[in-house]
Amino acid sequence: MMNGAQALMKTLVDAGVEVCFSNPGTSEMHFVAALDSEPKMRAVLALFEGVATGAADGYARMADKPAATLLHLGPGLGNGLANLHNARKGKVPVVNIVGDHATNHVKYDAQLQSDIETVARNVSPGFVRTATSTATLCKDAAEAIAAARSLPNQVATLILPADVSWGEGGTPSAPLAPPKPAPADDATIEAIAAAIRTGKKAALLMGGRSLREPSMLAAARLAQHCGVVLLAETFPTRMERGAGLPPIERLAYLAELATVQLTDVEHLILVDAKAPVSFFAYPGKQSYLVPDTCTVHTLAAPHQDILASLEKLNNALGASRAKPRLQTGQSPGRPKGKLTAEKVCKAVGHVMPENTILVDESITSGLMLSAMTAGAPRHDLITLTGGAIGQGLPNAVGAAVACPHRPVLALIGDGSAMYTNQALWTMARERLNVTTIIFNNASYSVLNIELERVGAEKIGAKAKSQLDLRGPVLNFAQLAQGMGVHGVRVDTAEDLLKALDYALATSGPHLIEVMVPESLSGMKRRILPWMLRSLPSLPLPVTRALKKKLAP
Amino acid sequence: MMNGAQALMKTLVDAGVEVCFSNPGTSEMHFVAALDSEPKMRAVLALFEGVATGAADGYARMADKPAATLLHLGPGLGNGLANLHNARKGKVPVVNIVGDHATNHVKYDAQLQSDIETVARNVSPGFVRTATSTATLCKDAAEAIAAARSLPNQVATLILPADVSWGEGGTPSAPLAPPKPAPADDATIEAIAAAIRTGKKAALLMGGRSLREPSMLAAARLAQHCGVVLLAETFPTRMERGAGLPPIERLAYLAELATVQLTDVEHLILVDAKAPVSFFAYPGKQSYLVPDTCTVHTLAAPHQDILASLEKLNNALGASRAKPRLQTGQSPGRPKGKLTAEKVCKAVGHVMPENTILVDESITSGLMLSAMTAGAPRHDLITLTGGAIGQGLPNAVGAAVACPHRPVLALIGDGSAMYTNQALWTMARERLNVTTIIFNNASYSVLNIELERVGAEKIGAKAKSQLDLRGPVLNFAQLAQGMGVHGVRVDTAEDLLKALDYALATSGPHLIEVMVPESLSGMKRRILPWMLRSLPSLPLPVTRALKKKLAP
Repeated sequence: MMNGAQALMKTLVDAGVEVCFSNPGTSEMHFVAALDSEPKMRAVLALFEGVATGAADGYARMADKPAATLLHLGPGLGNGLANLHNARKGKVPVVNIVGDHATNHVKYDAQLQSDIETVARNVSPGFVRTATSTATLCKDAAEAIAAARSLPNQVATLILPADVSWGEGGTPSAPLAPPKPAPADDATIEAIAAAIRTGKKAALLMGGRSLREPSMLAAARLAQHCGVVLLAETFPTRMERGAGLPPIERLAYLAELATVQLTDVEHLILVDAKAPVSFFAYPGKQSYLVPDTCTVHTLAAPHQDILASLEKLNNALGASRAKPRLQTGQSPGRPKGKLTAEKVCKAVGHVMPENTILVDESITSGLMLSAMTAGAPRHDLITLTGGAIGQGLPNAVGAAVACPHRPVLALIGDGSAMYTNQALWTMARERLNVTTIIFNNASYSVLNIELERVGAEKIGAKAKSQLDLRGPVLNFAQLAQGMGVHGVRVDTAEDLLKALDYALATSGPHLIEVMVPESLSGMKRRILPWMLRSLPSLPLPVTRALKKKLAP
Repeated sequence: MMNGAQALMKTLVDAGVEVCFSNPGTSEMHFVAALDSEPKMRAVLALFEGVATGAADGYARMADKPAATLLHLGPGLGNGLANLHNARKGKVPVVNIVGDHATNHVKYDAQLQSDIETVARNVSPGFVRTATSTATLCKDAAEAIAAARSLPNQVATLILPADVSWGEGGTPSAPLAPPKPAPADDATIEAIAAAIRTGKKAALLMGGRSLREPSMLAAARLAQHCGVVLLAETFPTRMERGAGLPPIERLAYLAELATVQLTDVEHLILVDAKAPVSFFAYPGKQSYLVPDTCTVHTLAAPHQDILASLEKLNNALGASRAKPRLQTGQSPGRPKGKLTAEKVCKAVGHVMPENTILVDESITSGLMLSAMTAGAPRHDLITLTGGAIGQGLPNAVGAAVACPHRPVLALIGDGSAMYTNQALWTMARERLNVTTIIFNNASYSVLNIELERVGAEKIGAKAKSQLDLRGPVLNFAQLAQGMGVHGVRVDTAEDLLKALDYALATSGPHLIEVMVPESLSGMKRRILPWMLRSLPSLPLPVTRALKKKLAP
């Protein structure tokens, strides 16, 4: 005889949901008690819900299947919302279990009572359900898991009243198979093939699940055979990169640059990606970045079979046997002297081991990261899909749980790191092989750029103080130590390399705080060479125009 | 000529909203730039939105007027939701300004696009509005402020698209006066007076705004004259206490105890309070704690004039000139030796200066706090109104901003402190006079009790690990130092007293980490004497029964 929680636990693991990132409260105590009834379920405690949800996101990106979260009523879901937003935007499967008051307690409007469903709709528009009885709980759960796993993957939220959990008579449900995706139909393939055959400049914009080796190779054959340009979305959910894989340039974050990358493209072909728009709107500037004269085609929408669609297109164009261009292995040399953000990226490129999972939430400090790691040994890149900062540290937790034998390297801005700093404790507790680099520039650096970009005039002292993380400057090495993570602070390239060598050779979590103070004009000076080096697609006249436009 | 943000800033300060707790992003940059256009507006930066919202809550509790928050789209509101929930449950006014994409950018579903309103409805059911034009923005803002300030006070959310903010033609709006509350009508007064006149056991349950000196004195006159018992709600938003004020016993958190406090009450008279229900539901136990034979009366609902209602009742019963019983001044002696949670509470009672603002989120460790500070010099108590932990540190920030010349003493459980630890940085940056005591028992201690109370059986290793904050034990002194706050760790009463003396004598923030490891059975042994001492209302047979029921 099982109670609801025990049957739910079995339903989860039977469907392959074998990790639960949790931050429970009283209403989840039966679920917690049921953890021991199911040996296959691993529970990973987080000290803040945003860590749990971000870890579930990172886990699913690497495991290619969902984890569960365990959250405590509306406020717990609220705390987890930002990283669920990132998961939603990255089309990542997550199964939220949100505990609620017992059904007969709701009417009393006790302290923790609130409308959980209205919060959940923000991140789970496709699946929010409140379980109503122990007998039907597992059917609800199986449907939630299937919803999360169906394409496009999504965040599914199952609200679990305490009495549904503690009630007897739970019956596990068998997993439901998500629908099998179909490739693009013949008419679509023919239309796109015809567009490419015109010889006009065409580009493939690849996103979502297409940035894995099989689809990338297929795209690279097309590129080789037909001269199609390959681009990746700005913030990939997960992108395989490095030596031996086709090099694919990412669209730039700055709309000014993305527009340049798209110059003269007459056919933009979407592969599990959206037509590019600027991250924010700016006064007097266009949000939609596709050139007026460009036709947008969808080769494969997020719910379709991407690889099969690419292969169909290659067949239609005779590109199936083309030899794809692959990235050669080449790493930058050892940086020297006083650290800058660029030297940190160089050091990472210099030391990065094979099979690294690189979590990038370095914002402005990581501008050179892409260029510095392009020829590094093969690795996976995880980025900030939804723009809600505070993703990187939790993502690293989840990635390390999913891939315990791979090194995880997380590059995080100081501002971003503070939102979910509690992730460090979970890294220590679970002895995860995560090396975190915190860029301490004592600033919401990107906002200094954005403040100018939005055309805000007369920037006064109060405004500047809102972007400034000094007075006091944070000490992340101390924060790490306070949470049981080995932490050091460095300000030279030599010390950074030494710290990286030690961290990568010593199991368990490490944090390296790199001091990279920088002025706004310094940052501007840094952006320009980055563009010139990291965007090889830019033709010379364009770089000249940009040089003029963006010079400090 | 003003833009929307500048006019909004003026509208806010004209209505008395003079502090903005902010965590901005790009879509809020014009609001940030406008800060310098309005000298009366103070902006306080938080490194996490839950700190900003909790600070706005704490500020309003002490300033008796709302602050604004500045949050970045849906994820920013999500991060702030838990403490807005606490504000909502405490009937605290807060004005949220949530930045959004420019109106013409919404259709592109950019990375940070989400349904903000659906999140806001969780905490702002009474007022959620998206501004649609610069011309009408300030009217929307004035209405939001008036909604927050109308009784019962509430969280009002104004969503501010970037183009509404940057658009020219902003026109400040004059403040709208919130409706004036009326006292209870004559029929209600007469019915309650008649009930009291029967001589049957009657109790006043006081909550919300009634726990301030004038209403407390009026209630104490009634108690003195008519023998009515005075009770306060379990988690007061703000309660004035200490020597010279009427002593009012709070209803216990544990339903088992609250039921005892309500034994034999035949008339329960609500004063800005709800009829008591248990915090959570438990299998086979009643949620509603009012005895079956008890009649519930509402003297003053949250939207009414509380003091006038109490005075009307006193007039009807001839109690207006009764001499209220007042708490005499008496503080506990100096604790000695190895620390326990009880000794920490004793030390606090021993040293607490006049006019302290006591923020209590100490959960199980603070069980003795109420008894130990009952006769302390007059002070204000702020508690966890909505049950969403992570409130105390941010509340302390806001209280210190509202009352810069009063000492703030925040007692926080280790589990609670981690949710919003970033508040320490804001304390350091604003040089706030906050002394934080962190009870480090390396456990979600309350959940150990709750796990038993909900009747979860067979508690295994995995379940226990979810309530256990060891491996590694957090070091809060190091965390404080990492955020620029003076931090020490102590494990004897002598060291604690020394640290408290230093902290209270030295301006700026301090953190004292008290090491109070405790077993579950130890905690049970502690609960019983606490009940006996801190709940003087319990008649002897009841304490005997309880002793039997709760003995370890």
